[in-house]
Amino acid sequence: MDPAEPRAAAKRRGRRPAGHDTRTALLEAARQVFAENGYEGATVRAIAARAGVDAAMVNHWFGGKETLFAQAVLQIPSEVQELAASVLAGDLDTVGERIARGFVTAWDSTAGGIFPALVRSLTGHDQAAAGLRDFLVKHMFGRIVARLEVDQPLLRANLCASQLVGIGMVRYVAKFEPLASAPADVLVAAVGPTLQRYLTAELNLPAT
Amino acid sequence: MDPAEPRAAAKRRGRRPAGHDTRTALLEAARQVFAENGYEGATVRAIAARAGVDAAMVNHWFGGKETLFAQAVLQIPSEVQELAASVLAGDLDTVGERIARGFVTAWDSTAGGIFPALVRSLTGHDQAAAGLRDFLVKHMFGRIVARLEVDQPLLRANLCASQLVGIGMVRYVAKFEPLASAPADVLVAAVGPTLQRYLTAELNLPAT
Repeated sequence: MDPAEPRAAAKRRGRRPAGHDTRTALLEAARQVFAENGYEGATVRAIAARAGVDAAMVNHWFGGKETLFAQAVLQIPSEVQELAASVLAGDLDTVGERIARGFVTAWDSTAGGIFPALVRSLTGHDQAAAGLRDFLVKHMFGRIVARLEVDQPLLRANLCASQLVGIGMVRYVAKFEPLASAPADVLVAAVGPTLQRYLTAELNLPAT
Repeated sequence: MDPAEPRAAAKRRGRRPAGHDTRTALLEAARQVFAENGYEGATVRAIAARAGVDAAMVNHWFGGKETLFAQAVLQIPSEVQELAASVLAGDLDTVGERIARGFVTAWDSTAGGIFPALVRSLTGHDQAAAGLRDFLVKHMFGRIVARLEVDQPLLRANLCASQLVGIGMVRYVAKFEPLASAPADVLVAAVGPTLQRYLTAELNLPAT
């Protein structure tokens, strides 16, 4: 009725960071499109179209389909997603310690958050399980081992993933004590050397 | 009708090993009593009474309530249950390697078997989850660390459990490659030293 109203609304919208709206719209559109088409069937183009934004915005805000899936559907905390980049920004001789600290800190900050749901998802055969596998193997550990220039990079990445998934299970899901209540520093000191060995040491594996 | 029949039946029963019947009857009774009363509420006495045998038979055949629960309800392969005893029968300097080999061999023999169901059970809040925790922490790793005479025995046991649960997740549940298809010897060489360090090495943990 009042011709001033739409303009006021537009002004309020204008005060919000425009990126916030785009990002939120993409997350909502992604949930719908992934649910309708599955992980493989959902395209970046379709998600962007549903959100009413340019497809380039997906790469701008999420870096790609996997991260968008991780955030929209798996709801993996962004700290966990940023782990790969942050652990590579430093001395490779202490990369295991940084991974352990990053993993425990990120999940502790959400009290384990959706870790149990993630694990249930891994035990299923649905799109979420496939997406989570891709996220962990390719997006996260794949980026780390690609930089290390070691033999058996994928097996090393798998071994790291096994120790981190196991720590998540024992600390946030099964809640074995005393590990579940141990300070982050204790876990970092215990698990860091394991990850470091898996990533950079001579593993002396038998020939296969 | 035929008076010979019951005797013939009795004779057939008599040819079976008596222990097999008792064991089978106890497993069936345990499933019923655990389902009706939960893990805490179920007593060895009640299970034995349901099976129509003496309560001492539970200890004779299963060693106690936890193992009976592990076999009857969780259906953990007996090879996994016997792991604790077998790994302790040897040099403590190579106990990590024996645990890794025992774990992978036992689960590989069932192609992962019920590992996904076990993990889903761990993510729940039901009696099975509590029973599995007790089985792993007290019955299995508790027995191992009790013999090692090390500092922080429970934390060490938890750390071992985390690596084994993680290997089970990655090899049998999430099936990350190449770890899921790697020969057992490769996993033993990779994971054995981790378990050995967790169990017997100086961990240099920060004071808490």
